[in-house]
Amino acid sequence: MVVILKENPDPRQLDNLTKWLQSQNLQIHTSSGVHQTILGLVGDTSCVDMDLIRALDIVEDVVRIQDPFKSANRKFHPLDTVVEVGNAKIGGGNFALIAGPCSIESEAQIISIAEEVKKSGAAILRGGVFKPRTSPYAFQGLRAEGIKLLLEAKKETQLPVVTEIMDISQLDLFADIDLIQVGARNMQNFELLKQLGHCQKPILLKRGFASTIKELLMSAEYIMAGGNNNVILCERGIRTFETATRNTLDLAAVPMLHSLSHLPVVVDPSHATGIARLVEPMTMAAIASGCDGVMIEVHNDPAHALCDGPQSILPEQFDAISRRAAILRETLKK
Amino acid sequence: MVVILKENPDPRQLDNLTKWLQSQNLQIHTSSGVHQTILGLVGDTSCVDMDLIRALDIVEDVVRIQDPFKSANRKFHPLDTVVEVGNAKIGGGNFALIAGPCSIESEAQIISIAEEVKKSGAAILRGGVFKPRTSPYAFQGLRAEGIKLLLEAKKETQLPVVTEIMDISQLDLFADIDLIQVGARNMQNFELLKQLGHCQKPILLKRGFASTIKELLMSAEYIMAGGNNNVILCERGIRTFETATRNTLDLAAVPMLHSLSHLPVVVDPSHATGIARLVEPMTMAAIASGCDGVMIEVHNDPAHALCDGPQSILPEQFDAISRRAAILRETLKK
Amino acid sequence: MVVILKENPDPRQLDNLTKWLQSQNLQIHTSSGVHQTILGLVGDTSCVDMDLIRALDIVEDVVRIQDPFKSANRKFHPLDTVVEVGNAKIGGGNFALIAGPCSIESEAQIISIAEEVKKSGAAILRGGVFKPRTSPYAFQGLRAEGIKLLLEAKKETQLPVVTEIMDISQLDLFADIDLIQVGARNMQNFELLKQLGHCQKPILLKRGFASTIKELLMSAEYIMAGGNNNVILCERGIRTFETATRNTLDLAAVPMLHSLSHLPVVVDPSHATGIARLVEPMTMAAIASGCDGVMIEVHNDPAHALCDGPQSILPEQFDAISRRAAILRETLKK
Amino acid sequence: MVVILKENPDPRQLDNLTKWLQSQNLQIHTSSGVHQTILGLVGDTSCVDMDLIRALDIVEDVVRIQDPFKSANRKFHPLDTVVEVGNAKIGGGNFALIAGPCSIESEAQIISIAEEVKKSGAAILRGGVFKPRTSPYAFQGLRAEGIKLLLEAKKETQLPVVTEIMDISQLDLFADIDLIQVGARNMQNFELLKQLGHCQKPILLKRGFASTIKELLMSAEYIMAGGNNNVILCERGIRTFETATRNTLDLAAVPMLHSLSHLPVVVDPSHATGIARLVEPMTMAAIASGCDGVMIEVHNDPAHALCDGPQSILPEQFDAISRRAAILRETLKK
Repeated sequence: MVVILKENPDPRQLDNLTKWLQSQNLQIHTSSGVHQTILGLVGDTSCVDMDLIRALDIVEDVVRIQDPFKSANRKFHPLDTVVEVGNAKIGGGNFALIAGPCSIESEAQIISIAEEVKKSGAAILRGGVFKPRTSPYAFQGLRAEGIKLLLEAKKETQLPVVTEIMDISQLDLFADIDLIQVGARNMQNFELLKQLGHCQKPILLKRGFASTIKELLMSAEYIMAGGNNNVILCERGIRTFETATRNTLDLAAVPMLHSLSHLPVVVDPSHATGIARLVEPMTMAAIASGCDGVMIEVHNDPAHALCDGPQSILPEQFDAISRRAAILRETLKK
Repeated sequence: MVVILKENPDPRQLDNLTKWLQSQNLQIHTSSGVHQTILGLVGDTSCVDMDLIRALDIVEDVVRIQDPFKSANRKFHPLDTVVEVGNAKIGGGNFALIAGPCSIESEAQIISIAEEVKKSGAAILRGGVFKPRTSPYAFQGLRAEGIKLLLEAKKETQLPVVTEIMDISQLDLFADIDLIQVGARNMQNFELLKQLGHCQKPILLKRGFASTIKELLMSAEYIMAGGNNNVILCERGIRTFETATRNTLDLAAVPMLHSLSHLPVVVDPSHATGIARLVEPMTMAAIASGCDGVMIEVHNDPAHALCDGPQSILPEQFDAISRRAAILRETLKK
Repeated sequence: MVVILKENPDPRQLDNLTKWLQSQNLQIHTSSGVHQTILGLVGDTSCVDMDLIRALDIVEDVVRIQDPFKSANRKFHPLDTVVEVGNAKIGGGNFALIAGPCSIESEAQIISIAEEVKKSGAAILRGGVFKPRTSPYAFQGLRAEGIKLLLEAKKETQLPVVTEIMDISQLDLFADIDLIQVGARNMQNFELLKQLGHCQKPILLKRGFASTIKELLMSAEYIMAGGNNNVILCERGIRTFETATRNTLDLAAVPMLHSLSHLPVVVDPSHATGIARLVEPMTMAAIASGCDGVMIEVHNDPAHALCDGPQSILPEQFDAISRRAAILRETLKK
Repeated sequence: MVVILKENPDPRQLDNLTKWLQSQNLQIHTSSGVHQTILGLVGDTSCVDMDLIRALDIVEDVVRIQDPFKSANRKFHPLDTVVEVGNAKIGGGNFALIAGPCSIESEAQIISIAEEVKKSGAAILRGGVFKPRTSPYAFQGLRAEGIKLLLEAKKETQLPVVTEIMDISQLDLFADIDLIQVGARNMQNFELLKQLGHCQKPILLKRGFASTIKELLMSAEYIMAGGNNNVILCERGIRTFETATRNTLDLAAVPMLHSLSHLPVVVDPSHATGIARLVEPMTMAAIASGCDGVMIEVHNDPAHALCDGPQSILPEQFDAISRRAAILRETLKK
């Protein structure tokens, strides 16, 4: 961390700052030029509050040189992390398609879709049971009952399963769930993240729709700081001024996350765009950008889905996407 | 709600749609023009999923005519809601200054600030104890211990107190807290909102930094749907491309919220701007925009605050702001 | 266009509105429900001002059913437009790599790069001569002198050339330029667009960094309304809250533009990301999303480029990208 | 400017960088710590391209310590600039209301409004004649004919007048216009700004709807670099994800601009919100934030205005706003 002082800093305040920094176990290298003095801080600056220092009267600016995430940082862990989800692997060259309905509605529905997507090459089954809906009057998911149906589908198809947790009180219900999803709206629900750090299940951490790439990594750090390194990052679109698509899918985040972190990165083109006909081109683009998995909403009858219908595709469409995706991945390996 | 059909809709699909809408207890008024057919839906459309209908092949667009919030809607509750927080009132012409430190650090600190801000005219004392920090390595607040200190300050000064809840499991600790704050990051933590709907304490609901005005009202609706109508809305800045200030304070949200809803609206210029010298002009602007309260961070020694120092002001500065604010409010009443 | 009236509209105002709409040569189909009356407007609504109607006291909302762009609209021109740029073709299955330096610096530089990128498969040479720089003190480009150097490179390599125009007064200098670029900052310089509509040269219209997809199409419409249909659209990233990349590349815009319009779409990953190591993955992703061309900055010595160095890649890197891009396109055709 | 090097920089590359920096007339102060070396650059860094340096392999980050605007910078010009527009003054404690219709439609219209707003206290008359419309099919303004009508109104009322220029070729028509407006879409039309720097007329520079505060100041610098210091800055709302208002009015920009620059700042609540009933509260808030003027759209019959009707208010409403604004300004002076 580098602290750039204003011209002619008040010596008493500078002395205060120096002592306070030293009390944080930091060494200070001072370099004085004609117009400016710069303090180089050496030591563990990950818990130093930049804003606090920047607020001081004598400080012009503060620059963090090391990213404040450690466990998630590729610098300290150069090798790709491979996360195992049941018998599926994600990361380090392992790719997985995650597919299933937005909401689980019935046993027949989830089992039928599970069988279809498995046949088409999906490695993990998704299905929503706790649904974060903007309106309290909208369908909130089958909840505990939905978990049971999802586990039925798992038993039938041997596919590992992923579903979203919305509150830590629901954790007991997730005992047999293979991958716990933290939704975009909960990416900075830090109490939830802390608790998930104490379990050893893989976590699918979705980027908040107004969160930066570095904030996503800091949220991963919350989970990893508790001892759980099985974190999969998920890009699912950010909120911008553009209204033609539901969100703006930020595919540059994929190579950027890969350069900053060793964690696997999957992409959710269904929620990002909110439009079924964009799912295929964005799946292909996501793969070409280098992601480790794609999560796709598949429904057997989108027109009657209880939620998020517009972004769902039919099993036969998923089959075509899966086939094209496999060919694309073969080509990219060359 | 109005459904605009594409030209020459498939009759079978139209029949399906019509039946499905009727099964939602909606009456349908069809009007056919040369190139387009429009369905006017009459009935309670608040739980109808627009996106679902828009996804249909035969549908061009769907327009909601009534806002999907009811309890929070001024149309159905024309009179201003007045929320009582201890002996303070907010809304319906009642204005309150809320002041105190970002984080409670010690008994001496919080009591000293509490006495100062009370003397200067604050009606409610704020002080953070559960702190939502981006980094797991940053100071997380004094937590349960902090609640005790805040209640000490309440006892000493008789000021009602507000602090932020981060997880529903903390609710028991809030028994003697007068106003429970839901932070921006939890505005769409729907499980938390639902639980808060079942208690009768006043809730200070902060707008998410990437949430629209209507989404804020939908989150208020979650609380009110549970039976708790004591909701105070708080504008605290939204995330935009501008980096000169921490967030962009959206003051037009104040009169807009007042026209859409009967709930009181307070403004937090400290977090919105993140810069101490902007707190006074933005407090004045917020009051001129018509808000029902302003929440200001006050610290006795900003340079040594454990968090959020740059946006804090000193008690003597708060005193000056409070005096100018009072004069301004007198003028605006004329 | 559909006008939704408020309940119980004032009859005199309704009469005024009706007459005014009729004076705009629109037929009105009125359909009255219990709580609402809807006016369906039939005719050419492309020049009707929605905001004007929405402002009326008696109007609840206005919905445009037909997009206000006509010449650019795929509905009226279902076949892909193929734009010819010298001997290169873009659109309708024709793909082109556009490559060259951000700024032209010398004859040796531009000719050397031109030869290199041609060898590697570029179909069009780019080189900036009028540079829109944020600071008046930054290098503004070689201007007229640069045009000469670019034309030298064209003569040497037979590559068609593209460069940016910044003001209509520069048009005479563009007589031998094959493709005129309108930069992101000028996308809504309507006077410039109108003038370019009167020439018959192909125009490369870059999306403004805060412009929606529909606004981009409206700007294309400005050019086409003047009689020039040779417009190529260019996605180059939009401004969001994310700062890890310079802009956020919106690749979903590619299939979205293709569905709304018949015009070809190219992608500029260099400016969008501002980071050289992201150019290859974003080029691949852009191609996989279905674009008709990619524009890449190539420099023989990025460390000494006079502007925009960070996003430039070396000729040997471009060669590798071009080869991978060709393989990818072969795969996608299958 | 401070350049932070990566650990163990390649000595040859460091030597290259050092020489290149020296060739830019900069002195270099090197300070080496255990893990990092920092170069402090002393001299005129306003034309040094940060991005170029940041692109180098050996560079970790670059921090600009001095803002790259000089003429607009309050550091070098501590006193408020007062701009004279005819007999009106703006800045340095002088406040002006600017009022008039969005578009000039007829002599009767503009003269009648001019008389009304003058009576109500407006100091400057506005009226659009060249209109930047998103659609080429929308009304484009009366253009040259409109300038004549505006000058008629000036003659009748002795009010100085302001209207927008869209292209430098229109400049001759502005000979008798007192204040030339550069619209938000042209804020980075650098060729236009350069030309306006060579005339001595006051310029009203509107902030681009996706431009930062610093970019606005850099655009002012373009004008001032040419010798014209009569620049008035205008905040008119920025583009965000919020759709309840047309744009998000960034009132914190007012005190922020005042601290960074000596130029006067006016606010346009009409365009920012796009909603007539928000004009009064946002005018009051703008004044309370410390602005030097407010620009308000006034129309004698908003329902029939040819453009931008929803945001216009009637003369009697303007009269009430003007009276309340005067009282507010009196209070704030205390």
